[in-house]
Amino acid sequence: MNGAESLVRTLLANGIDTCFANPGTSEMHFVAALDQVPGIRCVLALFEGVATGAADGYARMTDKPAATLLHCGPGLANGLANLHNAQRARVPMVNIVGDQATYHRPLDAPLTADTEGWARPVSAWCRTSTAVAAVGRDAAAAVQAARTAPGIATLILPSDVCWDEGGEVAGAADIAAPPAASPEMVGRAARILRSGESTVLFLAGASLRAGPLAQARRIAEATGARIMAPTSNARIERGAERHRVERLPYVIDLALAALKDVRHMILVGAPEPVGFFAYPGKPGRLLPPEAQLHVLTRAEQDGPLALEQLADALDAPPAGVPAPAARPEPARGKVTSEAVGRTLAALMPDNAIVVDESVSFGRAFYAETVDAPSHDWLQLTGGAIGEGLPLATGAAIAAPDRRVITMQADGSALFTVQALWTQARERLDVTTVILANRKYAILLGELASVGANPGRTALDMLDLSNPDLDWVGIANGFGVEAAQAQNMEEFADLMATANNRKGPFVIELII
Amino acid sequence: MNGAESLVRTLLANGIDTCFANPGTSEMHFVAALDQVPGIRCVLALFEGVATGAADGYARMTDKPAATLLHCGPGLANGLANLHNAQRARVPMVNIVGDQATYHRPLDAPLTADTEGWARPVSAWCRTSTAVAAVGRDAAAAVQAARTAPGIATLILPSDVCWDEGGEVAGAADIAAPPAASPEMVGRAARILRSGESTVLFLAGASLRAGPLAQARRIAEATGARIMAPTSNARIERGAERHRVERLPYVIDLALAALKDVRHMILVGAPEPVGFFAYPGKPGRLLPPEAQLHVLTRAEQDGPLALEQLADALDAPPAGVPAPAARPEPARGKVTSEAVGRTLAALMPDNAIVVDESVSFGRAFYAETVDAPSHDWLQLTGGAIGEGLPLATGAAIAAPDRRVITMQADGSALFTVQALWTQARERLDVTTVILANRKYAILLGELASVGANPGRTALDMLDLSNPDLDWVGIANGFGVEAAQAQNMEEFADLMATANNRKGPFVIELII
Repeated sequence: MNGAESLVRTLLANGIDTCFANPGTSEMHFVAALDQVPGIRCVLALFEGVATGAADGYARMTDKPAATLLHCGPGLANGLANLHNAQRARVPMVNIVGDQATYHRPLDAPLTADTEGWARPVSAWCRTSTAVAAVGRDAAAAVQAARTAPGIATLILPSDVCWDEGGEVAGAADIAAPPAASPEMVGRAARILRSGESTVLFLAGASLRAGPLAQARRIAEATGARIMAPTSNARIERGAERHRVERLPYVIDLALAALKDVRHMILVGAPEPVGFFAYPGKPGRLLPPEAQLHVLTRAEQDGPLALEQLADALDAPPAGVPAPAARPEPARGKVTSEAVGRTLAALMPDNAIVVDESVSFGRAFYAETVDAPSHDWLQLTGGAIGEGLPLATGAAIAAPDRRVITMQADGSALFTVQALWTQARERLDVTTVILANRKYAILLGELASVGANPGRTALDMLDLSNPDLDWVGIANGFGVEAAQAQNMEEFADLMATANNRKGPFVIELII
Repeated sequence: MNGAESLVRTLLANGIDTCFANPGTSEMHFVAALDQVPGIRCVLALFEGVATGAADGYARMTDKPAATLLHCGPGLANGLANLHNAQRARVPMVNIVGDQATYHRPLDAPLTADTEGWARPVSAWCRTSTAVAAVGRDAAAAVQAARTAPGIATLILPSDVCWDEGGEVAGAADIAAPPAASPEMVGRAARILRSGESTVLFLAGASLRAGPLAQARRIAEATGARIMAPTSNARIERGAERHRVERLPYVIDLALAALKDVRHMILVGAPEPVGFFAYPGKPGRLLPPEAQLHVLTRAEQDGPLALEQLADALDAPPAGVPAPAARPEPARGKVTSEAVGRTLAALMPDNAIVVDESVSFGRAFYAETVDAPSHDWLQLTGGAIGEGLPLATGAAIAAPDRRVITMQADGSALFTVQALWTQARERLDVTTVILANRKYAILLGELASVGANPGRTALDMLDLSNPDLDWVGIANGFGVEAAQAQNMEEFADLMATANNRKGPFVIELII
C-alpha cells in the first residue's frame, strides 16, 4: 500500500468521510487513492478559499471535521482567510496539503514555498510527514488534534511519501471529552448570580445551541441575569420555540451602551468583549472598568454541562418552551434592512440554515427573525470577508435535507464567488440573496468612525458601481439560476420560489 | 500631519505613483490621505490576489515598484499566491498592510492575525511601524529594499500610527546599482566558451531584454554556445528583429533531452535548472551529472553588463539584426495549440504585451510566435495559478499605449476572475483569450507522469464541465464584453476585432 492509500484509509477509520478539494500535481496519488478506497465524498472547489470555507460550514453543522485537499504553499495561502474565520469559529478541520517531494524541496523549484510557515498561524496542530510509514500515524494524530479542543490540524504531505510503498493504516485515535468546569467556578458563579448585581452570562460556541440556551434561560429567570453572545458566532440555534439570546452590537457606541450597567460578566466559552477595531478616543475593552469578569468555562471546556450544573446549583426551575409568536407577513414597499429581515422571517422554511454575511445592511436581520420558524444562524466569525457562499456550500453538504439561505453582501461575495459553481455541481438547496448596494458600505461607516472626511479619491475606492456588477449574469455564468429584485414585492416572490425549488438560486436584491 | 499623510508623501518622494488596492477598515486614514495629497493613481481590485498580481505586472513593465494596499492579515493572505509568483519574478513591490492599532492587538479582536508571519516568506523586507514618527522613515526603507536587489517589501501599519499626528516625511532613499560580475568570472566564462565544449548560456531576469539578448547572440555566434532561458520568465523581449532565446521545456523528459549533451552551463542571473516537480524515477537536477555549472552573475548582479563584458572579452563581432521572416496567416480549421499560436502571431499588433498563463494547451505558442512583430512575453513564474488576468491588468496600467493579450487557461482564470472588473473600470486595452477545455488538463498529464491510473472519482476531481462555465456570461457580469469562438475562423475574427477596439474584451475559445 502506498502512503496515499494509507492516508485515505486512516481518515476513514477516524470518521472523516467528506473532502473539499482543489487538487494539484502534488496530490495526484491522493486523488488516485480515492478511486481505490470508496467512502470519502469529494467536493470540488474552483478556489481554495471555497474549500476551506465549506469545510468550516460542514463542521459547524456536523460538529465533526471534513478534510480539505490543497496544493502546495500557494494553494494553502488561497485558503488562509477562511481558515482564519474557521479558527475563530473553533471548528474541527483537517487540511491535507500536498507539497514538493522531500528530496526535491532543497532544489527550490518555482512552486516551493514555506508551507508550514503559512499554516502555523491558523493551525492548532501542524506537521509535515517525512516518511511513508508515518503518514497513517500522522493523519490519525491530525484528526485527534482537530477533534480535541477542537481546532484546525494541517498535515503537509510531500509527494514522495504519498507514492512510496510502505503505508501503514492507523486506527481510530482517542478523542478526549471536553473538561468540565471546576465545581469552585460553578459555585462562585452561583454566588455572583444570587448577589442581585447586574450580571451577564456571555455565551459562545456549543452553549448557543437550543439545549444549553434553555439552561441559560433557567438561570436568567431565577436570577435576573441577562443572556448575551458575541457579535459574531459560529452557530446559534434560534427561532420560534427556542430561547432567545441577545448579541452584542457591532457598532462600538451601541456595544458600550449595551454593557454600561454590567457589574459582572460570566464567560461561558466566550472571550472578553472587545471592540472589533480600535477607534480614536474609544475604549478597546467594552465592559465598564468597574465590572468584574469571571470564567465559568474556557472555550475548550464543556460549557453546556456547566450551564446545567449552574442552573441546578441555583435550584432554578425548568424554563418553559417559549410561546410561538405570530409569524410576520412578507414586507412590502421600500427595501430596508428591517423589511428584508421581516420577509426572511415570513418565508424561511422550517429548520432552515441562515448564513449571515450581510455586513452593514443586515443589522436588523437578527432581531426581525427572532420569531421565524426554528433555524440555525451562522456568521462570519473572523471578520475576513468572503466566507458566506463557501459556508453555505459546506452547510448544505452537511445537511442535505435542510434549506440554506445566504444573506450576502455584494462586495464580500466577490472574494469567493466561485462557490456558486460548486453549489450548481452538487445541486445544493441554497438560496443566495446578494445584497447589492454596489459599494463597500461598511467602510463608509468606518471612515466616519475614525474621523476621516472622504473626498473623490477616497469615495472612488469604496465604490463598486463603475461598472455595475451583473449578479444574474455572474451566477448564470457559474451555472446557477438567478433573478433580480428591485422592491420588496419582487423579493418576496423570488424568495418563495427559490426556497421551494431544488438546487441553488441567486436573488440579486438591489438595496 | 498624521502618519497616513507622511506615508503618502514619502511614497511619492520615493517614486511610487501607482497603488493597487483592496482597502479595509484599518486603511481608512491612508485612503483619506490620498485625497489630501495628489499624485498617486489608485486602482481598485475586488480581491487582493488581483492587486498583488497587478503590481507584479506593473513592475515587470516599468522596472519600478507599485504599492499595494491590503487589509490586515487575511487580506494579505488573499494576496500571497501572487506575491509568491512576484517573488519568483524578482520584481520590486511595496505592500502596505493595514492592521490593528498597536494597543488593540493584545486584545485579540476577531480580525487579529499573524500578519508578519504570513508576510515574511514572500518578503525580502518586512517591518511593522510602531510609532507615527517612524512611518515615513519605514516607508522609505521599504522602497529602498524593494528597489535594491529587487524584491518585495512589506510594511505593516497599525491603524493608530496612521491616524496619530506627528508624521515625518522621508526623502528619496539611495538605490544602489546592481553589482557587476567579477572580472575573474568573466574571464573564466570566456575560457570555457573558447574551449569548444558544449556550453549553454542560461539567462534570466534583465538579461532577457532585447539589448542583452543581442550581446548573448554575439557570444553564441563567436563560440557556438546555445542561448537558453528557464521554462517560465518574468519578461522576454522577442519577436521579429529581435534575437531568439530558447526556453527549457516544462515536460521533464523533454527538458532532460534538451540538456543531455551540455558540458558547461553559464548562469546569468538564472538558477540551476531543476524539475518543476519530482517524478518517480526521474532526476530532480536536469543537467547531466558530468556537466559543470558556472555562475557569471547571481540574480542580484548586473547580468546585461556581464554579457557585454563577456562578448567584448571574446572579441565577438556585433550580432546583426535578424532578417524579419514572413508573417504567418491566421490558421484555419481545427483548434490546436499550433493553430492558436499561429493566429496570435498573425494578428498581434506591433509592440504587444503577451501574458501567457496557457498552462497545458499553450505549449506551442512560444515557438509559433517567434516571427510575430516585436512584443514582450510575460509568464507565470512561481507556478501559483491565477496570475494571468491580474498580470495583464497591471501591465496595461503600466503601458497604456500597448495592447495586452492574455492567453489564459480556464481553470486558472477562475482563481482571480475578479480582475476583469478592474479591466472594465480602468478601460484597459486587454484582449483575454480563455482557453476553455473545461478541465484541469495539466493534472491529467501529471497523473500519468507519476504513474497513477485515474478512475471515475479521480477524473471527476479534474473535470470542470458539470456544469459548463459560461465565460461570456461571467465576463459580461463583471462588465467586460465577450464572445465565444468554436473554430479558428471565428477565433481570428474575434481576435482581430478585439485587438482593434478600445477597452477590454474576452474571447472564450472552446478547445
